[in-house]
Order: sequence, then structure tokens, then C-alpha cells
Amino acid sequence: MNAEGPPGPAAAESAALGAEQLRVLRRVGREWGRVMAAPEVWRRALPVDPDLGRFPPVAQLRSAGSGRMVRVSALGPRAARDEDGTEGAPTGAAVRIRRVLLGVPLKSSAVVTERMRKLLALPVLSADALSSVAYGPEAMLAVLVLAGTAGLAYSLPVAGAIVFLMFAVGLSYRQTIRAYPHGGGSYIVASDNLGRTPGLVAAAGLMTDYILTVAVSIASGIAAITSALPSLAPATVPLGVGAILLLLAGNLRGVRQAGTLFAAPTYAFVAAMFALIGFGLADAAGRGFEPRPAALPAVTETVGLLLIMRAFSSGATAMTGIEAISNAVPAFKPVEWRNARTTLTWMVGLLIVMFTGIVVLIHLAQVVPGAQETTLSQLARLSFGTGWGYVFVQAATAAVLLLAANTAYNDFPRVLSLLARDGYAPRVFLRLGDRLAHSNGILLLSLAAALVFVAFDGLTGALIPLYAVGVFLAFTLSQAGMVVHWWRLRDRHWRKSLFFNATGGLLSAVVFITAGISKFTSGAWVAIVAVALFLVVTTRIRRHYEAAREALRLHPHLIELPAHSPEGPSASPERRLPEVAGGRTATAAGNGEDEELPEEIQHLSVVALATLDLAAMRTLAYAASLQQPVLALHISLTEEEARRFRDYWTLWGDHLPLEIVVSPYRAVVAPLVHCIEGLHRQHPGLTLTVILPEIVTSRRSHQFLHSRTASRLRRALRPLPKIVITTVPFHL
Amino acid sequence: MNAEGPPGPAAAESAALGAEQLRVLRRVGREWGRVMAAPEVWRRALPVDPDLGRFPPVAQLRSAGSGRMVRVSALGPRAARDEDGTEGAPTGAAVRIRRVLLGVPLKSSAVVTERMRKLLALPVLSADALSSVAYGPEAMLAVLVLAGTAGLAYSLPVAGAIVFLMFAVGLSYRQTIRAYPHGGGSYIVASDNLGRTPGLVAAAGLMTDYILTVAVSIASGIAAITSALPSLAPATVPLGVGAILLLLAGNLRGVRQAGTLFAAPTYAFVAAMFALIGFGLADAAGRGFEPRPAALPAVTETVGLLLIMRAFSSGATAMTGIEAISNAVPAFKPVEWRNARTTLTWMVGLLIVMFTGIVVLIHLAQVVPGAQETTLSQLARLSFGTGWGYVFVQAATAAVLLLAANTAYNDFPRVLSLLARDGYAPRVFLRLGDRLAHSNGILLLSLAAALVFVAFDGLTGALIPLYAVGVFLAFTLSQAGMVVHWWRLRDRHWRKSLFFNATGGLLSAVVFITAGISKFTSGAWVAIVAVALFLVVTTRIRRHYEAAREALRLHPHLIELPAHSPEGPSASPERRLPEVAGGRTATAAGNGEDEELPEEIQHLSVVALATLDLAAMRTLAYAASLQQPVLALHISLTEEEARRFRDYWTLWGDHLPLEIVVSPYRAVVAPLVHCIEGLHRQHPGLTLTVILPEIVTSRRSHQFLHSRTASRLRRALRPLPKIVITTVPFHL
Repeated sequence: MNAEGPPGPAAAESAALGAEQLRVLRRVGREWGRVMAAPEVWRRALPVDPDLGRFPPVAQLRSAGSGRMVRVSALGPRAARDEDGTEGAPTGAAVRIRRVLLGVPLKSSAVVTERMRKLLALPVLSADALSSVAYGPEAMLAVLVLAGTAGLAYSLPVAGAIVFLMFAVGLSYRQTIRAYPHGGGSYIVASDNLGRTPGLVAAAGLMTDYILTVAVSIASGIAAITSALPSLAPATVPLGVGAILLLLAGNLRGVRQAGTLFAAPTYAFVAAMFALIGFGLADAAGRGFEPRPAALPAVTETVGLLLIMRAFSSGATAMTGIEAISNAVPAFKPVEWRNARTTLTWMVGLLIVMFTGIVVLIHLAQVVPGAQETTLSQLARLSFGTGWGYVFVQAATAAVLLLAANTAYNDFPRVLSLLARDGYAPRVFLRLGDRLAHSNGILLLSLAAALVFVAFDGLTGALIPLYAVGVFLAFTLSQAGMVVHWWRLRDRHWRKSLFFNATGGLLSAVVFITAGISKFTSGAWVAIVAVALFLVVTTRIRRHYEAAREALRLHPHLIELPAHSPEGPSASPERRLPEVAGGRTATAAGNGEDEELPEEIQHLSVVALATLDLAAMRTLAYAASLQQPVLALHISLTEEEARRFRDYWTLWGDHLPLEIVVSPYRAVVAPLVHCIEGLHRQHPGLTLTVILPEIVTSRRSHQFLHSRTASRLRRALRPLPKIVITTVPFHL
Repeated sequence: MNAEGPPGPAAAESAALGAEQLRVLRRVGREWGRVMAAPEVWRRALPVDPDLGRFPPVAQLRSAGSGRMVRVSALGPRAARDEDGTEGAPTGAAVRIRRVLLGVPLKSSAVVTERMRKLLALPVLSADALSSVAYGPEAMLAVLVLAGTAGLAYSLPVAGAIVFLMFAVGLSYRQTIRAYPHGGGSYIVASDNLGRTPGLVAAAGLMTDYILTVAVSIASGIAAITSALPSLAPATVPLGVGAILLLLAGNLRGVRQAGTLFAAPTYAFVAAMFALIGFGLADAAGRGFEPRPAALPAVTETVGLLLIMRAFSSGATAMTGIEAISNAVPAFKPVEWRNARTTLTWMVGLLIVMFTGIVVLIHLAQVVPGAQETTLSQLARLSFGTGWGYVFVQAATAAVLLLAANTAYNDFPRVLSLLARDGYAPRVFLRLGDRLAHSNGILLLSLAAALVFVAFDGLTGALIPLYAVGVFLAFTLSQAGMVVHWWRLRDRHWRKSLFFNATGGLLSAVVFITAGISKFTSGAWVAIVAVALFLVVTTRIRRHYEAAREALRLHPHLIELPAHSPEGPSASPERRLPEVAGGRTATAAGNGEDEELPEEIQHLSVVALATLDLAAMRTLAYAASLQQPVLALHISLTEEEARRFRDYWTLWGDHLPLEIVVSPYRAVVAPLVHCIEGLHRQHPGLTLTVILPEIVTSRRSHQFLHSRTASRLRRALRPLPKIVITTVPFHL
């Protein structure tokens, strides 16, 4: 599916520059113009043709089977082997296992997006919502039954309220689809219309929603299986964790979601539900629609507002996932919004029919939720015994729930990328086409879902209270955003749309508040704490990015920009430059990394050498060829070795200045760093280029045999300002 | 203690060059002379004074408490904080726990070596050997008792043979100390005199010895504790793993071994043993030296050669660690070898007295080894009841065994560094003064010891069969090496020394063969397989290093070296150079990384930019200031962004050539790599310098918020030849 919000001109890493920044850019460019025109040849002719059109196209789509990922041709066969491997590449069995689980490593992959027909979009996008009827009615009854027959008497009215809610929210999302043809997820709609914080809150609701979709769907799917095979019940937690690992592996591998394979479970589930309802009603008709007598468990609560509220908010989880289509409008074939709306209508229709049918059936059969068996399983057993019909119902239920969990794996990275776009999440999640962004999001989701699943022992009933809060928080904010949207826009049908959205929003708010209050102690507090934590973390991330952006803004240190004149007085910056530049070099503010012109940079290349071999000679030649001052640095462990190295240097011809440091205690990296730091202190204006030879082995598994000095040094020097690190490879 | 083999002129990384290499070096130097004299200013004046004498001394010894590590001053406070932290520095509680376990992070540490007086050296170096009497006699009796009273009758003769062995091996090591005043570990002696493979086999024996010293000593120490507190017995494995973790943490932290703290347990143990023997003999004297009657377990074997052999080789483990002093000669105060010899004599004397005393005591008391209680504990209980005397014996035993395990933590890295020196182990273990070498060795040892300990359930009896094989293999080869040594040397006392070493070697060989045969199935095979694996791995490592050395040898590509004339015909290589060089550039052999002269290198700098911010401008300025052709590269995700970037570039003044690649599927690294590879293919003679801006955050924990493109690109480009990677830091 891979529907995304608009890539947006605001993508953080390549943001458009503001007017002031453009002005600065032009000014800086003028300075460069002066420099580049100078007698020194700053700008040399290119020895290659940068127009790469004549070379194989930059990226080639390679067949990647049924995967969601596409290979982007980047490297030769050798590099390809290396790129995906980890340090010290695994061999033999490990590789084979990895292949089976994660597939042939894709050299460098990107995500394929494609358009769906309605008949494909319906099952793929509805799996989450429709599968919710597997646990929603049961969750409602599990509350009502606490008050015995008196409680169960409310099942039909409460279910009626939920159906009304489905209807209202469905109508509401029809408006969203029209208004946001590029995909109107709760985060986008809420941020667009209500502002940053409501947007973030909606995103927090969504993120907890996706995590819980995975946990609840898998818990419910496992329950469908253990209902049929009670002997598996003790293994609920391992089975669930196994299912999460399966989803993790499949998604890391890059399973494409739009295939017919993914349509089958939903259609099978719908068919199973209709068969179940049909058989059940026929059976009930035979009895004259009289409820069967049933043995109820002991009554522990009395019917009261709180109980009804809890039942209502638990049952409302039957509509989780209803928003999926409005997120995915761009994934439809044109006219996108129209097709999406039609599909939404079908879906809500199916949802209402299935939900109503099951609740009525439960009412007629007087099935009581039990710990051992799901109500769906009980209903199926009543209708089909233990034959193939029963097996089909349970298998279809488990399959559609696994599929529903899988949809969260598509949506979670999408929301993360939107958050990253706005600076609320690490930038690594930004590029949705990038395998890395997906992999990290997938890992994060799996980890969180597994944690929640294990913490609540894989029990659907225990997870439901957490679920409702996040979902309806996102719904509420999304609908509220739509209300503001219509109020601002006031186009042709705005009154009607506003009314629908207001109704949907109000009802969602009622569910949210109901769930938050009535289930606070039984789990909702976890979701509320998670939302709060999410707000804190995202806000801090945003603050960091804002500080970084401020620090990275183009800023001409030389020229004071007059506030008003866009061009400023072109008062011959040429003449002012030299002394200013000179003065700045000494009193460089901050980290002193403020050179913006080639002529401002004063070079010193420092070549760190362990020995005089071919790699060292090549590194020296590289350093000398830069035609900047070069200082060679050698750390000797003993005085004797120092003398010997000096002799070799002389024999070579002493072509470059050499400094030998005899290291006390035989440390290597520390004296090197100390030396380089000393050079920096002596002349802070210098840009020190530390040049290191680096042996690259042909087999990755051999790399550990060679000195890691380069990477250790890189880490040690990283915090020091104005130290450029250059590694010259030598391939064995 | 930290005695080391001679640092040796052969240290792999800074090997002395051979005559042929020196000749090549002089020739290459002559070529450089021609180049550097050319009109271009290849060699520029240094802007700094490379003589750093005026700056704070390169390394400062900072007080590190009682630690073995010394801080080598390298960086400012900020860098110091960062260097020891890992990526995404831990915060809060994690830091505090780490501090407690591993101590304040040392900025960059090296190992302190110091000299010891004999009275300090004795306990420190003898802990391993003397503590062996805690399990040796018991191991012997545990075999003999299988044949009942008939078997136990052999305890005194077998013990006599072991005492003779101790005497002979002690005398033998006295010769080694004289011959190898710089430290004569088995590996050194065997390689020096018998050749590479025997040396490696000895090293293999030593390595397994050290691993088993840790496992056996801890198993025996835990047994001493559980004998006193039987309720702890079920926790043997967790207790042992805990002890290994303790040793790991202590050694990572850098515990100094020479302190009086480390002398105490040995002296306490010796005192405890003498008290035990004294009381026991006094008690027996009261009974007229009549053995007590004892209840023996059921007889399962008959007395036979194999049983006696097993008993002998098991009992011989009482002398493990006897070689420690000969390894550590340089750690003594001058005259080193004389002091070491005296200490060795004391140690062997103590060992023989204690071993004999305990065996006799066991014989008199007719104590039978049992699974619940060690024989030492039984003896102590007989003499002291359960009072303070008993507690002292058990505590001293446990303490000295922990200390014995700790000595392996000093020896293991030492042997690894010797192996690394000769190219048999990864070079990272080479620099013994370096904290890194120690840390890696310590981790390796802990892991191996923990594995063995857990695999054998922490039972001393189960570990003993593995132990004897490795130790006596190393002993045998060491003594055999000494025989060859004396035969070759034939100095004043050679006949006597050769005789002692031959006797010691022969007896060790007998024990090795005995142990290997009689205990093959009960565990010795593990040690034999480990030795074989060790040989395979070290040989392959050596082969890699030899190939690498060959590839890295100085090799003048321009000048064919005549085989005989050392100077060669100085037939004006100057005149031949240009066209040869030109021809080579196109048809570069191999990876083409054969430029050795500055003028041979043709540069192209490629600046990869994501956006036009301050970091980018600084990177561009850096690239331009190198005065080589520069090509800027930008990956755009959309056509629109590409146009925008082009506009900015034009606004800036189009000072450098720019190539924009629109990335399909929004991948970033792959198209960059593809582009760079394309440039390389177009002109393989070019050295491409890929210059990347790199944002460095002031807090390490924020680094993950910034693009990892630089490191991903570095990894992806690494296999490609002639691509130099330069990162220009920008500190936030």
C-alpha cells in the first residue's frame, strides 16, 4: 500500500531556503566570486564529464520477486556482497539462515509504491477494521456479563450505540477523504487545523494505536487458535512472540502488501462471518428466535453507568482501523478520493453488518465469554460442530488478525516519517523510500509490541483497555481538525461536512473520555503515560533540530547584513576582508568552524604513520600531492624504534617534515590525539587534515585482523574542532 | 607484575626493513627528490612548530589509585567524556553502575609495569601453583578410591612420583630462568628452539591452560565455600559465573596485581595449610600414626595400570602454575634471574611440603573425597571442628583460588600479544601497554572460562581431565626446547642443565601422554580438539598477515630492480618516467593503487551535499581550498527539489560544477555510490576524494538524531579502489 502523506516541500533535510537565507547565499556567492577570480587557480577544469547520462542509468529496477523493496543498482558484485553484510561477515549456516528469514540481501533498496483497484484495496485496507469484530463484541460482553443477566440485557442497546458510532465516524471519514485527497491521517489533519501540540497528541495516539493493533490482533489471533487447540493455550506468550518475530522478519525482508495473497484472508474472514451469521440465524429461526438458556458466571458487579461506559468503550474497539482508508487515498487508482470513498462505504457497511450479526447471534445463543474459548469460536462450534466449517472460521479469523497486525507495520513507519519531516522524530526515519527508515521503524514497532504483549501475558482482554484510549484520542483530534477545516474553508457542502465531522468527533471524544475514566486503573493509564512520554521526547527532539538548524543557517561572518535593504550596501567587502579575516582567525568565536571561503582556510596535513610500507608511501604521496604543508607523525613504542624510523626517513630522503613521539606505556591513539590537539592549540586557525592509511581486506571477515586505529582515532578526534579526517584506502 | 617477553625488534607493526626493502626505499626517495624539486611547490613551509616539547608533555602519569592502568593524558575534558563512552552514551543509572563496576573511565590508558621484591613476588607468582594443592590431592584420591582400599594403598607411591615430578620440573625451570632472563614462557622457548609449529602447539597448550586455570580455580574455590555452607551448593554455577564476572570487571577496571592485597591470600593459605598439617600430624601422633577406620564407597574398578595412570595425571594438576615464575623473570628486582631462581626454589619447596603433608594427612585420616565436601574441608573439620580455625582454612583456600584465577588474566593477554607479534593472533592484541589489547584479551578469557565452567556444571572433578593435557603439553615442549637450547649452546654447565631439562621434559611428556590416553573420553578430547582448532586458526591468521605484508612491501613500479647490483644502473629514471607513468595510469594493474609519487596522483574532489547550509558551505570551501578540481553532487528526491537546488546554486554564483541526480525510489546512498563509481570507471586513473560534511553534536546522545550518511557511505565505498574519504566536521 505505502500511501504516504505528501512528500512536502518542507522535508527537513532539503528545506527550501527563506528569503533572508537566499539573500545571504547571494552575498556569500559574491565573496566566492571575488576569491575564484583571484590569480590562484581555485577552480580547475574537471577531468571527467559529470554528465552521467552516458553511463548505465543511475538506478535500475531489478526484479525482487513479490517483495516491497526494489533493488537500486549501486555497486559491483563485490561491493554488493559487502554492503549488506555486517562487520566480520557471517559465513555458512548463519548466512543461509539469514537468507531464508530475510531473503537475498538487496544491495540497496527502496520501496515500491503502487496503485490499487477497489476490490483489492477493500480487503487490504479493511483487514484491520473488519478483523476487529473478532474481539470487539467479546470485549463488550466480557464487561456486561460481570453484572449477570441484568448486564447482558444491555448488550443490544450498547451494541446499537456502537453501530451508530461506526456510522457517524464512517460518515465523518468520508468528509476527510474529500478534503485530504493526498491522505489525511490524524496527525496531518490535526496539525494542519489545530496546531502543533494537538497534532503531536494525535500522533501519540496513533503510535500507541499501531503498537496495540499488533499486540491485540496477535493476542486475538492466538486466542482463535488456542480455542480450536486448547493444548496450545499454555504457549500463548511464546506463540505470540513468535508471530511478532515472523512479522518482523517478513517486513524486514520487504513483503509487498498489495498482492492477492493479502486479499484472501479478509475475503475468507468476511465469508466465514456471513456463513456463521447465516447458519446461526437459521438455527435461531428454527427455535423461534428464543435465546438459549445459558449458565452465567457469578455476578460480581451491578449494572451502573460505569459498567455501561466500560462496555461501550470496550465494544468500540470493534471499529479500530476504520481510519485506514482515509490515510491511504493516494494508493487508489484515479479518481483517488472517489474510489476511496466508495471503498470506505463498503467497508463500514460490512463492518456494521458483521458487528450487528455477531452481537445478535451472541444474544440469541447466550454465549458467555470465557477464558478458554473466544465467543466467535463458541458460536462457530454451535453452528458447525468441530468439522471443517469450524476450522475454516478459526483459520480465517487467525489469518485476518495476522494481516491486521501486518498493516500496522506499514503505517507505523509512515507516521514516523511524517514526524521526522516535521523534526519530531530522528531524521533516519525521514526517507520513507529508504530501506533503513523502514527497518528501524519495523524494529521499533516489533520491540514495543512484543513488550506490551509479554507484559500483559498475551491476553486480549487485558490489552483492550489500553487500546481504546489511543485510538479514540486520534479519532477525536482528527475529527476536531476537520471541523476547523470546514469552518475555515466554507466551500459548497461545508455545513453538512462540518456537521458529520462534529458528530463523529463528539462521539469519539465521548468514547475517549469514557475509556480514559472507566478503565484508568485497569490499563488506560499505561496508554496515557505513553502519550505523555511521547510528547516529551518528540518535543525535545524538535528542540534539538531547531537549535541545529539555527547553528547551520547561512550566516555571513564577514558582512554585517543591514536589516532592511535586501541587497545591502555593496561597500566593497573586498577591502575590508583581509584584516577582518586575519583578526577572526585568532579570535575565532565558538568552535572556530566559520570559514566559508576557500582562501580563509589554512591547511596543515598530518599524516599518521605506523610503518613505511606501500600503503604509507601512497598516503604520503596523496598528502604531498595536495600541495599543502605536510607533517608526518609517527608514534614509536621504544626509543630504539624511534631511531630506526628516523633512519629510514633519512634514507628515503627526508622529503617531508617528520615528528616522532615516543609513547610512554605503549599507548598509540592517546599520544597521537595529544599531538594533534597540541598542533591545534598552537595555531587554532589552522584546519588540520589528519590523513590515515587504511588497509581494506578483500574478505570482510579478515578486516578485524587489521588495525582499527583509523576508526579509534576518528572517534577520539571527533569532538575537536577543525580536524578533518581523511582515510586513504589500500586494498589487499 | 606484567612481565612480558622482550618487546622484540620483530614487533609486527613496526618491523625493521630488510636490505632489499631499504634499497627500494632509497630509490623511491630519489624519485621523490626529483618530484619535490619541481617548480610546483610540493613542499610548503609548516605553519606550526612540530617540536612539541614546549607543550605539555605528551603523556602524563595520572594517579589511578591502585589500578594497573595509568591514564595517558590525551584530550580535553569534553573529549575525555566522549572517548570512553559508547555510541549514544548511557546516562544516569547506567553510568553509575558502570562507574562502580569498571571505575571512572580512564581517558586512554596504558599498563603500568613494576618490579617486585622476592617476598612480594613469591605470593603473587605462586598463588596459581600453591593453590593447586587444594584440588590436586583430591583429584588423585578420587581416582584411586574407585578401587577401594586396594586403590588407596597406592596413594603414597603415586604421591611420591608426583613429588619427584615437582622436584624435576622445578629444577628444569631453574635452568630456563638462567637461559631466558627476559622471561621464558613455553611459547618463546618452544618457538626459539623447536620451531614454529611446536611453539604454536605450546601456545595452544598454554591458552587452554589459562582458560582452565580460571575454570578449575573458581570451581575449586566455590567448592571450598559450599563445603562450609552446603546450602549454597545448588547455586554452584551462578556463583562461579558471578566470580568470573567479578574477575572480568576487576580486570577491565585494571586491578594491579602486585599490591600487598594480593600477597595476603597466598600467605594466609600457606599458614592455613601448615596449621592444618601441624594439627593433623599432632593428632595422628596421638593415635600412634594409625590410619583411622573409614567407610569407603562401593568399589567400581580394580587396580590396574590405567587407574594408576589416571590417578597420577590427575594428581599432577597439583603442580599447575609452576611455570609462572619463569615467565615473569623481568618483573623481579635486579639481579632478576638470580632472584627469580631463589623464589622458584622457595615455591617448589613450599609446594612439595604442602602437597606431601596433605597427602599424608589424608592417608592418616582416611578421608574419602565426596561430592558434598572437599577433602581439605574434611581435614580442616577433623582438626578444628567448625570453629574459627575451620572458617579461616576455607576462606584462605577460596581467596587463594580466586587469586590464582586472577593470574590467568595477566598471562592470557601476554601470550596473545606474543602470538600477535609473530602474526598468529589479531594485531589488536599486540600492544600490551594498550588498554584495548588487555580488554579484548580479558573478555575472550572470561567468555571461554565461563563457557567451560557452565558446560561442566562447575565441577572440579569434571574439569581436571581437560586441565592436565594442556598444561603438560606446554611443559613438555618447553623443556624439550630447553634441551635443544643447551645442546646448541654448550656453555659451562650445559650437561647438567640439559640433564635436568631432559628429565623434566621426559616426565612431563609421560604425564601428558598418560593424561591424554587415560582420560581421553572423560574430557581430554575437548582439550585436544581445542589445541587443533587453535593451530588451524592461528595458521590461517598468519597466512593472511603474510599475504598482507607481501602486498604492502615497498615496490617501485617504475624501476625494474636488477637482481644483483644493490644500487642498480642509475640509468636516468627521470627520462623514462613520463610516458611510463602515463601508460600506467590507463592500464593500472590490480586495484590501481600504486601511485607512490605526488605527481602521479590526479585528483578529483567530490563534495556530496544534502542541502546548502553552513556545514555545506564550509565543506565546499574546504574542497575548493585544496585547489584541485571539485565536483559537487546532490541527490534530489524529486524533480522539483532538483530544480530548486539548481536555482540556489545559480544564486550562489555557480562557482563549482554541480551534478544533481534525481533518485528513484528516494534512496540516497545507492545513487551517490553509483555516481561515484561511474566517475571512477570513466577515469580509473583518478584518485577521487569524497568530501562529506559531518554534523557533530555536543552531546553524544544526540548524535543519533543526525544523518548517518557519512558512515553509510564510507562503508559502501570502502571496497572501491582509489576512493579517499574525507569528513569535514561541523560542531553544533
